[in-house]
Amino acid sequence: MANQTASLIEENQQLKAKIQELEDALAKKSAQHRVKITTMSSEVVDSNPYSRLMALKRMGIVKNYEDIRHYTVAIVGVGGVGSVTAEMLTRCGIGKLILFDYDKVELANMNRLFFRPDQSGMSKVEASEATLRDINPDVEFETHNYNITKVDKYDHFVGRIKSGGLQGKPVDLVLSCVDNFEARMAINMACNEINQMWIESGVSENAVSGHIQVVIPGQTSCFACAPPLVVADNIDEKTLKREGVCAASLPTTMGIVAGFLVQNTLKHLLQFGSVTHYLGYNAMKDYFPTMALKPNPHCDDSFCLIRQEEYQQYLAENPPEAESEDPTEDVVHESNEWGITLVDETPESEKKEELDPDLAKGLARAYDMPSVEQVRILVKDSTESQQETEEPVSLEELQSRLKGL
Amino acid sequence: MANQTASLIEENQQLKAKIQELEDALAKKSAQHRVKITTMSSEVVDSNPYSRLMALKRMGIVKNYEDIRHYTVAIVGVGGVGSVTAEMLTRCGIGKLILFDYDKVELANMNRLFFRPDQSGMSKVEASEATLRDINPDVEFETHNYNITKVDKYDHFVGRIKSGGLQGKPVDLVLSCVDNFEARMAINMACNEINQMWIESGVSENAVSGHIQVVIPGQTSCFACAPPLVVADNIDEKTLKREGVCAASLPTTMGIVAGFLVQNTLKHLLQFGSVTHYLGYNAMKDYFPTMALKPNPHCDDSFCLIRQEEYQQYLAENPPEAESEDPTEDVVHESNEWGITLVDETPESEKKEELDPDLAKGLARAYDMPSVEQVRILVKDSTESQQETEEPVSLEELQSRLKGL
Repeated sequence: MANQTASLIEENQQLKAKIQELEDALAKKSAQHRVKITTMSSEVVDSNPYSRLMALKRMGIVKNYEDIRHYTVAIVGVGGVGSVTAEMLTRCGIGKLILFDYDKVELANMNRLFFRPDQSGMSKVEASEATLRDINPDVEFETHNYNITKVDKYDHFVGRIKSGGLQGKPVDLVLSCVDNFEARMAINMACNEINQMWIESGVSENAVSGHIQVVIPGQTSCFACAPPLVVADNIDEKTLKREGVCAASLPTTMGIVAGFLVQNTLKHLLQFGSVTHYLGYNAMKDYFPTMALKPNPHCDDSFCLIRQEEYQQYLAENPPEAESEDPTEDVVHESNEWGITLVDETPESEKKEELDPDLAKGLARAYDMPSVEQVRILVKDSTESQQETEEPVSLEELQSRLKGL
Repeated sequence: MANQTASLIEENQQLKAKIQELEDALAKKSAQHRVKITTMSSEVVDSNPYSRLMALKRMGIVKNYEDIRHYTVAIVGVGGVGSVTAEMLTRCGIGKLILFDYDKVELANMNRLFFRPDQSGMSKVEASEATLRDINPDVEFETHNYNITKVDKYDHFVGRIKSGGLQGKPVDLVLSCVDNFEARMAINMACNEINQMWIESGVSENAVSGHIQVVIPGQTSCFACAPPLVVADNIDEKTLKREGVCAASLPTTMGIVAGFLVQNTLKHLLQFGSVTHYLGYNAMKDYFPTMALKPNPHCDDSFCLIRQEEYQQYLAENPPEAESEDPTEDVVHESNEWGITLVDETPESEKKEELDPDLAKGLARAYDMPSVEQVRILVKDSTESQQETEEPVSLEELQSRLKGL
């Protein structure tokens, strides 16, 4: 009995030592979360995560960097471009991020920045939020693990754009980082309806070109005014469209496009430099076409036409001479050698041609032009068809779906 | 006694339960490392981390993507640009990375991509290696936590460039991601001496411009042939040079420069597209100057002159008509509107002017021109002076250090 007691005492001491050891190991594994910071400071100390950003004020680049905390950005699609976009804005100390995605992290995504192999199987928004909160606990996050093009989610998506900003305000900017045509058209439709500025982004399926395009309803070409542009790479288009072919991607091209997207977001929100309305990237030649795109007065989207009318009325009341805020003027900058804009006064009979103007050298249309009505119907009917999209939906596919209705 | 035994047995059970609980928590915290992969496969399955890269072959972009496993890249400086550069190459499945840095991770670095707050206090190379191994265990890593410009480290640095590649070969490319003039000159000196191609990168102190510049000894301008170029931002140079002022930085600009650096690295190693010898980025206007820079026949670096002579001899034996491999020809592409190259036949008396040709619009020299000899002496004497550099060393500072000898 005395022996049993003695050995139990000894065993319990060993168990306690083991517990201490495990607790130490666990403490070491847990990330040391940094404390929240109430006010952005310019103090130049190693412990200040905002010193190098607040230095933009001292350098004369940005007047009120700390204003970034008042802004909310919605990111639709948290893949190769969207995840890096979210990380950049988080590190810049944005006020709030709203993330939309319905996909899961896979090992096949590891050739792009951001996600880690141990996050495989997690939803992309859940994995993103965990990583981003660790990086900057000062940012507010709201995530939605659903497909915005589904009939039962679209209205909720529009509602969050309208009132998901800080203090229940509309978000300040929507960034489209999706990889398919249908989701882009859904974002376009929503933003035209509620008069919301957004920026579209895209990377080609061969991974060596990409672009961003700013859409201000009524002021610049919307996604329905003209098919999106891509930087052509002298590659047979057919090789890009074969079914069942896995798209190529590179962390470089996607990181660069995310960089362009966030840089122009910062310029817009914090009012420095000039926002570029269309910026392309051709990795093969390091070629960067820019252009200004005016809205199409025959656009299929009726809300686009309403926004155009509103903007024309605004211009009539605030003539450009007194008012230099016309964004389509700002972007025709030095390197836009061709200065191409869509013609804005064309009879109905010439409409088809208008949609295919002589594009800037090196650019091609990413898709043929479907009507907004087709997509509007599709949004209402996509409840079951959207689970596997990593590939853009082709026009053919859109049409066969419509026939199936 | 019986009571004591009973309570000991109960305690014993509780302790064991606690151990189980802690072990479960610990297992959950530990990253699920993915297993090493012996051969890159093109198989299109969610579990294949290389499917989207191998798709570059099917897309007709790269002939032998899997060759990337044979290459070694050395990255000098693992800060805002170097860490993202390392992550991109790791995710692309590069054979081996050699990282050089002597700095520690600080919270003040959190406005750039890659490092996490819980890594504060770790050396940058140690923190990088841990993160990168988790992302891709197939890559071989070698790290050096020292300052390459120190007299007792410089020779070791040169030795690793000469024989740190896979199978003891020289590395295939050196990427300079440092933030000061002295380290760039040390890399330049080493690469001229051992005839090693390298790519320089840089971001301005106001965070809104950056560049990459390819240096092939004897074929293109080396770092001593002409001071480095920066994209000018119409900002008073004096505001950039005040002492004690903390440089601004942005995750966008640094991510974009890293993207340009790795994209051109991939194009060079895997032989697709055309490598751009000088690519600038002006974030304020989304302006991207490119140019070709020929070597300066009066360069202060004697090894640069030897390499130039070797290259001229090579050209004489392999006339350009039969041999289209002159890289300075390749890069004069469409968007290089000015086609500026340094004059390569100028008498000694005109040397000063030659170093300040009419630069492409929007470009300015980043520094005045010191002699290579000054820097050579400095490298040998920098044992104590280099611990705190985050700021580039100015010419004034260089000269005052020289006076102090």
